[in-house]
Amino acid sequence: MDEITFAVVGTGGIGRRALEVSQHKDALTPVAACDRHGTAIDFDGLDVDELLAATEGNIDNEVATDGGERTDGSRSSTEHRSDGGERTDGSQSSTALRSDGGAGATAAEGGVKQHGEDKGVVASEQAHPSEDSIQDIIDHGDGIDAVLLALPNYEHDFIPRTADRFLEGGYSGVMIDVLKRSRVIGMLDERREAFEDAGITFICGAGATPGLLTGAAALAAQSFVEVTDVDIHWGVGLKSGYEDNRGTVREDIAHLPEYDIDTARELSDEEIEAIIDDHDGVIEFEDMEHADDILLERAGVCAAEDVTVGGILDVRSDEKPTTTTVSVTGRTFDGETATNTFQLGDETSMEANVNGPALGYLQTGVRRNRAGEYGVFGPAELMPGF
Amino acid sequence: MDEITFAVVGTGGIGRRALEVSQHKDALTPVAACDRHGTAIDFDGLDVDELLAATEGNIDNEVATDGGERTDGSRSSTEHRSDGGERTDGSQSSTALRSDGGAGATAAEGGVKQHGEDKGVVASEQAHPSEDSIQDIIDHGDGIDAVLLALPNYEHDFIPRTADRFLEGGYSGVMIDVLKRSRVIGMLDERREAFEDAGITFICGAGATPGLLTGAAALAAQSFVEVTDVDIHWGVGLKSGYEDNRGTVREDIAHLPEYDIDTARELSDEEIEAIIDDHDGVIEFEDMEHADDILLERAGVCAAEDVTVGGILDVRSDEKPTTTTVSVTGRTFDGETATNTFQLGDETSMEANVNGPALGYLQTGVRRNRAGEYGVFGPAELMPGF
Repeated sequence: MDEITFAVVGTGGIGRRALEVSQHKDALTPVAACDRHGTAIDFDGLDVDELLAATEGNIDNEVATDGGERTDGSRSSTEHRSDGGERTDGSQSSTALRSDGGAGATAAEGGVKQHGEDKGVVASEQAHPSEDSIQDIIDHGDGIDAVLLALPNYEHDFIPRTADRFLEGGYSGVMIDVLKRSRVIGMLDERREAFEDAGITFICGAGATPGLLTGAAALAAQSFVEVTDVDIHWGVGLKSGYEDNRGTVREDIAHLPEYDIDTARELSDEEIEAIIDDHDGVIEFEDMEHADDILLERAGVCAAEDVTVGGILDVRSDEKPTTTTVSVTGRTFDGETATNTFQLGDETSMEANVNGPALGYLQTGVRRNRAGEYGVFGPAELMPGF
Repeated sequence: MDEITFAVVGTGGIGRRALEVSQHKDALTPVAACDRHGTAIDFDGLDVDELLAATEGNIDNEVATDGGERTDGSRSSTEHRSDGGERTDGSQSSTALRSDGGAGATAAEGGVKQHGEDKGVVASEQAHPSEDSIQDIIDHGDGIDAVLLALPNYEHDFIPRTADRFLEGGYSGVMIDVLKRSRVIGMLDERREAFEDAGITFICGAGATPGLLTGAAALAAQSFVEVTDVDIHWGVGLKSGYEDNRGTVREDIAHLPEYDIDTARELSDEEIEAIIDDHDGVIEFEDMEHADDILLERAGVCAAEDVTVGGILDVRSDEKPTTTTVSVTGRTFDGETATNTFQLGDETSMEANVNGPALGYLQTGVRRNRAGEYGVFGPAELMPGF
C-alpha cells in the first residue's frame, strides 16, 4: 500500500498510543497531532519519540471543541475537571474522561492529568499553541489521508460535531473513531450523505470492541448461512490500578443496571470508590449498550437483538479476570449448528487491542477512500460479505 | 451491496455447494454454471434447486479446458478416470479429482462419478450441450460480476490457464478460486499486470484454508506490532467415508514426506487404501505446502517461514479428529507476548467452511472490482492492514 499520512485529534491515552503503535507500521506516517492547547504538524513525519517524551506526565485529554450548541440537552461534566484550566473556546466541552475506545468497556488512563509548565502537546518543541487546533488540522487536510478522532466522548455528540467541522472545512479523506456506544453510530449515519458528497470515508467503532471483535464475529460467521447468536465477553485487568482509571470505571458504571450515563456522571470520586469496594474490585457487566449489535446488523451478519455484550472489569489486578472471547453460533448450509470462537490472549493489553485494530482499519479506510468509497462504515462491513 | 451476478465454472462438489449456499445470500444471484459437457445460463437467476436435483448423482467434475500446451511437464492423470467418457476438447484435462479447496488439506467428494443418461450439467433442463462451455461463460461475461473457478487442479496450471482464456476473451470482473497450493499463486502473480490492464480482480485461495483461516490470522494479528508465529492446524472427519474421497486422500497423501504430487498421482486405488490402512484411517500432516504462508507474507503479517500448516484427516469418522485452530503469536507494542486464537466449531463441515468464505470473499472482490481495484489478492490482503 502507498504511504499513508494521518493525524491524531486528541493526545490523551488513545491518541498517544496510536502514535506509538504507528512507529511499528511502515505504511503509516503521523503528520499531525493536536489537543485543545495546540497543534504539531510536520509533513515529513512527526518525531513521535520527542512528542511522547515531552508530553509524558503532561497529558491533556481535551481538545478545542466547535463551540456549537449542545444537542443532547445533557449537562456538561466539567464539574469533574480538576485542572482549573481556562477553556479557550468558551464551549462546554466534555471532561478529560475519555470514556470510549477501550477493549471491552474500558478506555485507557483517561482522567489522569499531570501538569508541567506547558500543558499538553504544546510541551513538544514540534507544537505551537493554538486557539483552535482542530481548525489547524482541517486547514492542512489536503496532506492528511486519515484523521483518528481520539476524543473524549462524555458528550456523545462530540465526535459527530467534530465531523461536522471537517465537513464544513472541506476535508476529504478518512475519519475514524474507536467509540463503543450505539447512539453515536446513529448520529454519524445521519451524516452519511454529507460524507458521501464530501468524499469522506468514516469508519466508526474501530477499536477493540466493536472494532476487532465484531470484525472477528463477521469473519467467524462465514461458516454459516444463518447466525443465531453472537456473544462477546471481555475481560480487562487494569494495569495501572483503579486510582488512575476512575474515568474508565465511571463510564463502565454507567452500564450497570442501577445507573445510566447521566447518573454515573454525577458520581463523586468517593462514590465511585464505594461502588468499587461493594464489588470487591471486580465488576461484571451484562447486556451493555455497545455498538457491536447494530454494527453486526448493518453488516447483515445477524439481528442486533441476537448480539450480547458483557464483560468483567477487575480494577485491582493486572490479570484479565476472564479471557476475551467472541462466540458466533449459527447454522451451516448442511444443517449443522456450531460455534466458532475468537479469543484474545490474556497477555494482550486493552491498549494493544484498541490501537492495532484502529490503525489497521485506518489503512483499510484509506484504501476504500482512494477507491472512491465514501460514507459511514462499521468494522464488520469491511469484512468479507455475509 | 448491489446485487451480484456470478458464474460457477465446474459443477463438481464445490461448484454445486457454492450454488446451494448462494441461495442463502440475498445479494448473490447465480446466473451461469458449466462443466465440460455444457452450460446453463439464465440472467434472471438459475433455478438452483432444479439444477442440483437434475444433476444429483450425475456429477461430472471436469470442464472443457483450453487445449493449450501443458506447461508443467507432468503426465495427465486421465488414467484414473473411470467413466470412459469422450473428451470433447481433445485436451489432456485433469482428472475428475478436484484436489483443492477443502478445509485443511481436503477437498470434497471429488472423484465420485455416477452417470445418468445425460452427463453433468446437461441433465438440467436449463443447460445446453456445449463444445466449449468456458467460452460460453466468457461470451456472456458482460453480465457476470464474478466467476468462481471450481475446477480440478490436478494440473496445477489449470486455473491459471483458464484465467488466460478469460483474459483473452476480454472479461472484466472478479475471478476467484479456492486453491491451496502455493505454486499456483506464483503463476497467478505472473498475470497480475494483465489482470490490472483487463480490469480483473483475481482473489486466490478463498476457501477454508488459506481463505477463512489466513483471514482470521490477519485479523488476530491486529493486537501485535510483530507476529512471530502463525500456526494453522486443521481437523477434518470425512462424512461420507473414505471410499468416496479417494481423490481427496490422494491429494493429501502428496503432502506426506514420502510422497509428492507426482508420485501420489501414480498411486492406484489399492495403494491408497493400503496407505490408509497403514495409518489406521487417521493421517497426520505437518509442514504442508499450503499457500497460507506466502499469502500472509504478501499481506505483511509475517514472514512465510513463520507460518506452519498441519492437520489431521480421519477418513473413517464423521467427527473431526482435532479442532481446527489458528494460533497467532506476537509481541504487543507494550512488550507483552501473547497468542490470539480462532477456532472453528467441530460441527462445521469442511464444505461449510469452504463455500461460505468463498462467497464472502467473492462479494468483497466485487466491491473492490467496482471501485477499480484490479490485480491478484489473497484473502489476508482483504483484511485490515497490518
